[in-house]
Formats: sequence, C-alpha cells, structure tokens
Amino acid sequence: MTYRDLNTPIRTIMTPGPAEVDPRVLRAMATPVVGQFDPAFTDIMNEVMEMLRALFQTKNKWAFPVDGTSRSGIEAMLASVIRPGDRVLVPVYGRFGHLLMEICERYGAEVEAVYTEWGTVFEPAEIIRKIEETKPSIVAMVHAETSTGCMQTLKKIGHACRERDILFIVDAVASVGGTEVRVDEWCIDGVIAGTQKCLSVPSGMAPLTYNDRVEKRIASRKKTERGIATEEELKQQSDIFIRSNYFDLGMLQDYWGPRRLNHHTEATSMLYALREGLRILLEEGLEERFERHAFHEKALIAGIKGMGLELFGQKEAKLPTVTCIKVPEGVEADSVRSMLLEGFGIEIASSFGPLHGKIWRIGTMGYSCRRENVLAVLGALEAVLIRQGVPVNRGEAVQAALDCYMKPAVKAPIEA
Amino acid sequence: MTYRDLNTPIRTIMTPGPAEVDPRVLRAMATPVVGQFDPAFTDIMNEVMEMLRALFQTKNKWAFPVDGTSRSGIEAMLASVIRPGDRVLVPVYGRFGHLLMEICERYGAEVEAVYTEWGTVFEPAEIIRKIEETKPSIVAMVHAETSTGCMQTLKKIGHACRERDILFIVDAVASVGGTEVRVDEWCIDGVIAGTQKCLSVPSGMAPLTYNDRVEKRIASRKKTERGIATEEELKQQSDIFIRSNYFDLGMLQDYWGPRRLNHHTEATSMLYALREGLRILLEEGLEERFERHAFHEKALIAGIKGMGLELFGQKEAKLPTVTCIKVPEGVEADSVRSMLLEGFGIEIASSFGPLHGKIWRIGTMGYSCRRENVLAVLGALEAVLIRQGVPVNRGEAVQAALDCYMKPAVKAPIEA
Repeated sequence: MTYRDLNTPIRTIMTPGPAEVDPRVLRAMATPVVGQFDPAFTDIMNEVMEMLRALFQTKNKWAFPVDGTSRSGIEAMLASVIRPGDRVLVPVYGRFGHLLMEICERYGAEVEAVYTEWGTVFEPAEIIRKIEETKPSIVAMVHAETSTGCMQTLKKIGHACRERDILFIVDAVASVGGTEVRVDEWCIDGVIAGTQKCLSVPSGMAPLTYNDRVEKRIASRKKTERGIATEEELKQQSDIFIRSNYFDLGMLQDYWGPRRLNHHTEATSMLYALREGLRILLEEGLEERFERHAFHEKALIAGIKGMGLELFGQKEAKLPTVTCIKVPEGVEADSVRSMLLEGFGIEIASSFGPLHGKIWRIGTMGYSCRRENVLAVLGALEAVLIRQGVPVNRGEAVQAALDCYMKPAVKAPIEA
Repeated sequence: MTYRDLNTPIRTIMTPGPAEVDPRVLRAMATPVVGQFDPAFTDIMNEVMEMLRALFQTKNKWAFPVDGTSRSGIEAMLASVIRPGDRVLVPVYGRFGHLLMEICERYGAEVEAVYTEWGTVFEPAEIIRKIEETKPSIVAMVHAETSTGCMQTLKKIGHACRERDILFIVDAVASVGGTEVRVDEWCIDGVIAGTQKCLSVPSGMAPLTYNDRVEKRIASRKKTERGIATEEELKQQSDIFIRSNYFDLGMLQDYWGPRRLNHHTEATSMLYALREGLRILLEEGLEERFERHAFHEKALIAGIKGMGLELFGQKEAKLPTVTCIKVPEGVEADSVRSMLLEGFGIEIASSFGPLHGKIWRIGTMGYSCRRENVLAVLGALEAVLIRQGVPVNRGEAVQAALDCYMKPAVKAPIEA
C-alpha cells in the first residue's frame, strides 16, 4: 500500500470552530518533542498554567488542559463534581445544553432541565426561580451556544449560586478568548474552554479551571491509581470515587502539581500549540482581542444586512463570535454551503436539530477573525446567492463592511 | 506578561515513550487545518481507518483513534464493553495491569485479578485455568508491560476466550508498530495502540480496533446524543447505556462512519500526525519494522552486557522495544538519569512502584530506535557510571554494539 503525501487545500474557515490556526501555532507544533518529566517540559506545563489563569481572569490554583477535545474537558469537570444522585439544574437554550444534560445523566445525576426556545436566552431571574424550586447542588450551563449564536449573561446566576452554596459549572468553549469570561468576578466555580475556537489552536485540548470549592469536592472523592499508589493511599480510597480514571481531576492535579505523579503522557505537541496560542493572545491583550472580535462582527453584520439577509436570534443575546443568518425561503441551505466550499474555498456552518437547514452560522473566531476573511465570505455568499437566483442587494454587502472598516472613529482602521 | 519564544532542547529520547517523533510527522503537523466535515478531511479520516487496519493486521470494520492519550483509548474500550456487574478477569504482571483493574472497577465491573511477580509473565495455561475457575465475561490484559519490559504471549489465551465466548481486550500500547500484534489471528476482540511509542507520533491519540463481537455489545447499549438524536432514536435509548459520553464507541462509530454524526471536533493536526506516522510505517513495512526493532535491541543488549551490567526480567518474555537494567548495588538510580539528561541530553527511564530505583528502562521505539541513539546511550551510560565510581568494563559497551552492527550476516548493516 502506498499513500500520497499529505496534501490538503487552503481554506478560509468561517465556522464556529475549528477556526483557522495561527501560523505561529502551526510552527510551534513542528518543534521536536521532549520527555514528559524533562524539566524543559515541566517548565512549559507550569507556564501554561500561569497563562491559563490570565486567560480565565482567575486567581484559581488549578488551571490546566485535559488531553482531548473540548467535550473531554466538560466531561472531566462534570464527572469529577457529580456524585451519583446529585441534583443538577441544566438550563438549555441549544444543542450544547443538551450535551450537558446528557453527560450529567451518564454520571448518575438527577437532572432538572429548564428550556427556552433556540435563539433566545434566559432571564437570570427565571433561572434563580428554578434554583429555588428545584434546590440543586450543581447548576451547569453553557455560556455561548454556538448552535444558536446566543450568549447567556452569567453574573447574577453565579452570585445566586454562590449565596446558596451551589456549584456553578460553565461551558465557555465558544467564548473564552473571544469575549469576556470573568471567572472569579462572576462566581463561576468550574469552567471549560476550547482550543479550536477563539484560541486558534487545533482541536485536541480542553483548558479548564476550577476553584477551591470544586477542589474540596474532588478531594472528598480521592483515589490514587493502583500500581503507583502508596499502601497508605490504597487504604484511604474514597467510596464515592470518580467514575472515570481519565477524567479524574484529582489525579490530573497530582500530575500537574508538584507531586508530578504520572497519569497520562501529556500531549507534547498539542501543549506546545496551546502555549503559543496563549502567548499570542496575551501579547495581543485580552481587552484588545475582545474589541477585535466585536469590531469584525460589526462589519460582518453590516454586510449581511446590506445584502438584504436577516439575522437569526435574540439581538441582545448575540454571541459576538458567531453570526447566524436565516436561510431565505426556498433556498437549499446545504447547497449554498457546498458551492461556497467548492467554488471559493470558504467554509461556513449549518446548525443542528431543529435549526438544520434553517440557518447558516458564520464564525469570526481568533485568527479567522480578520478583515480579508469577512470581506471574502460576504463577497462569495452574495455571488452564490445570485447564482442560485436569490434576490439580494447586489454589491452592497462588501461596501457596507468596507464602510465599517474605513470609518475613522473605530479603533481598528483598515490598515490594522 | 511576556513569554519567550518556545525554545526546547534537542534530546535523545530512549525511554519507553514518548519516543522521538519522526521529522516528517512534525512537518505534517504544521499543515494548515481544514474543517472537520470538509471532504478533504473526511477523506483523511477514511484513509487513516484503512491504514490502521493494516497496522493491526485485521479485517475489522472499526479502526480509528480516540482523541486523547493512550489511556483514553483503553478507557473507551473498557467503558464501552463493561456493563455494571460484568465479571472481568485481569491478569496483572506490572503497573499497567493495575491500570486495567482500576478502570474496570471504575466502570462497575466485578474484577477478578491474578498476579505474577513483576519481571515475569504468565503461562497461558495458568490464565486458562483461572478463566475456568472464575467464568468471566471479559478478559482484559496488557500485551507489553513497559513498567517491567515484559511481553505476554496472547494467542492461546485469545483462542481460549473465543471458544468460551468471552471478550478478549488487550492493551497493546507499547507493542503495536514495534513487534507482532496479530489481532485477528490471536482472536483479540478489542485492542488499543499508542501513538507516542513505536509509531513515533506525539502523545495525544489512541488508535484502537474492535470486531463485530464488540460492536454487537456496543449496539446493545446504544444511545444517541440529546440535541442531535431523532425522536425515534430518543425512544430507543438503552437502559444500560455507556457511562461516558466521550468514550461511547457507539457514538464514535456514528462520527467515523458514513453517518458522520457530529460527536467531538476531530483533533485535526494530531490526525495529520497519525496519518504521516502510519504512512512511514507502511512504507517501511511491518515485518521490516519489527526486524529493525529486534536488530537494535540485540545491539543494545550486547552493549549492556559488555559493560558488565545485568538485565532485569524473565529472558524469554523480554519485550523487544524496552530493555530493563538492574541498577548496580549502591548506585543512586535517579542521579545517573539526571546526569545523562543534563550532561548528555539523553533521557532514559526509571520505573514505578516496587521497581522504582531498582531498574533503568531503555526504550528503542520507532524513530528513537536507531544505531546512533543506541551507541550514544551506551557510551554516555558508561561514562556516567565511571564518573560515579561504578566498576564497569571500560570501552566494551560500544564495541560490543558495534560488533553487532558490523557483522556481515545481519540484515541491517552499519550503512543501513
């Protein structure tokens, strides 16, 4: 058997992830590996923890990646805090709320769900009422629903949880690095980020952080692995141990902490990638990065509207990094996407479940969030729609976006 | 905060993993990413499945990686086959047998363990007797114990399991790609490999394969994710669903199979790396690769013995890719390792639990398994031992290895 050399096309990736990877990150991954206990490597592990604390705007001791895609981090967090029978409240406003429910159920939680229509979010007061009613020990929710392009405000819910001594766990996979996620200020106890979205690092790692409230819960379920545990430790195993070995955050702590107790073999090249992605982010500055995302979002929206298309979703709840467009009546949504990919090398996304075929989703995340990409997707989408006989305001989309880019008042002028 | 450019030392890595990564694999990782449903990417997914079947010498339909380090693949396999209360027999001859026990317990199995001294393996008849005695529905065991450098023969045990309709699950993380693992011929139902060992790909993926016996078990536990399942599917959820979402091989099948049902976002760059690692392996040829590993092992052993050191472990059970050396009386094992790393840039390994400080382990895996590396580790180890006042046969180690390399009869002469 012979296989040809890896030979992939260059794409303009405007989906809600994976986003384009920063060339500096790609280069970092080509660095030769070192051993997992080499001081040169453990230094990098410590550095990444420090950088993650800055990313999450937290003073938490624990901030490290789980080796797996974003949902591995979500599962690690939930597996580690949920004891069988724990009541968990999950407010659901899109697909990834369902995922949280699903994982909670798998780990034996008694799940209380509260729903709102896809494309809307909750009034915090509504969640707080539901907390009063169901008395959960954990509230788990999504910060940014890529499936609907909506973002939930968290601060009031976080404070309400803290006052009632409830653990507040947040999936911020799509927002971290693209828009504000103030972990400590919003009283989030445990939070998970994604690499392949606003960090512009490939999929395959799930950075997370948690505070001492979560750490205490984990400590109460302590189990050290057979074959490396001391006699003493074997005697002290908890009965309500975490049901997964790979996702046992207590064991991950022992590996990431000063004890350096072997768990897995850290994914070296992915950690190089994450380090470089975080380094680029911290060089740009968190605030500056959030402003950049908001700025290009504005240009994209102006273009979409200029073309004569309508946005999907509650306006005040719009996630700055994902823009959802209603598919015009009679248009075959997936055929437009195929033509964009095949003809223009541009990828945009569909959505899931009830929204499949009803909306397109355009991501403006991390390295993908650039002027040339916004202009390219607008120009190409217009051309494809015209080709498919859809009435649009010809030529207006790109002009409307250019108006935004050329306004002297905005912070990132066309030269930026 | 500013962080310096990633700047890692170049090491000669002679541990039982992570091994050095082939430069071609490093280069593949620097390739820009494409989206997970881009036909350019799904083609690569299909290709990797085909290449994995060749690696595992199997006709199995299912062969794909789990996105995580090796133990994520082990956990995915065990989580997917173990139903709570299933009796699982785990023969333990080192640390990674304990890991299998540990994972089985976490997933609610009734574990029957059988032990043999670290540094030895089992007589197949002994295991078969234990099977008769305990009547398990699953036997889970390690093929190659990196912790002791020993390898268990599997064929007789596999056939005994098949005759009794028992599932036979094997952790072959340290052997696949370095020595024979005949999945179909040995009647292995499910098996897990590692990337960071004999494939010379970075840690972060866990290739596995399983047959229709395992697939049937998985199908009986079917659960499609909330938020993407159809109404019909939601009604048909199994009560004995797999306890993990991330490790639900049924859901991974729906993602890797023609349905392409979104589960996680495949780790793009790691898949590029795995593809390149497999491509290099198939270009070299499986048999040729196994011979290369055996050939360099021979030279290393000759050198170790030439120096006057003793090997650890049962000779007939030696794993060709890991060579364990007894630490001479009075020598501080870890100080020798530090001096090798700091002074010579060469990494060798210690071991775990009862063997920590008692043996050194030298890996000859994949790209690390090269003449210059074998000669370097022998020369440096001798120098460090002399420095520490240990009596050795000065100059003999490298000469003994060179004798092997220069013998005209062997298949890989010094020029190879």
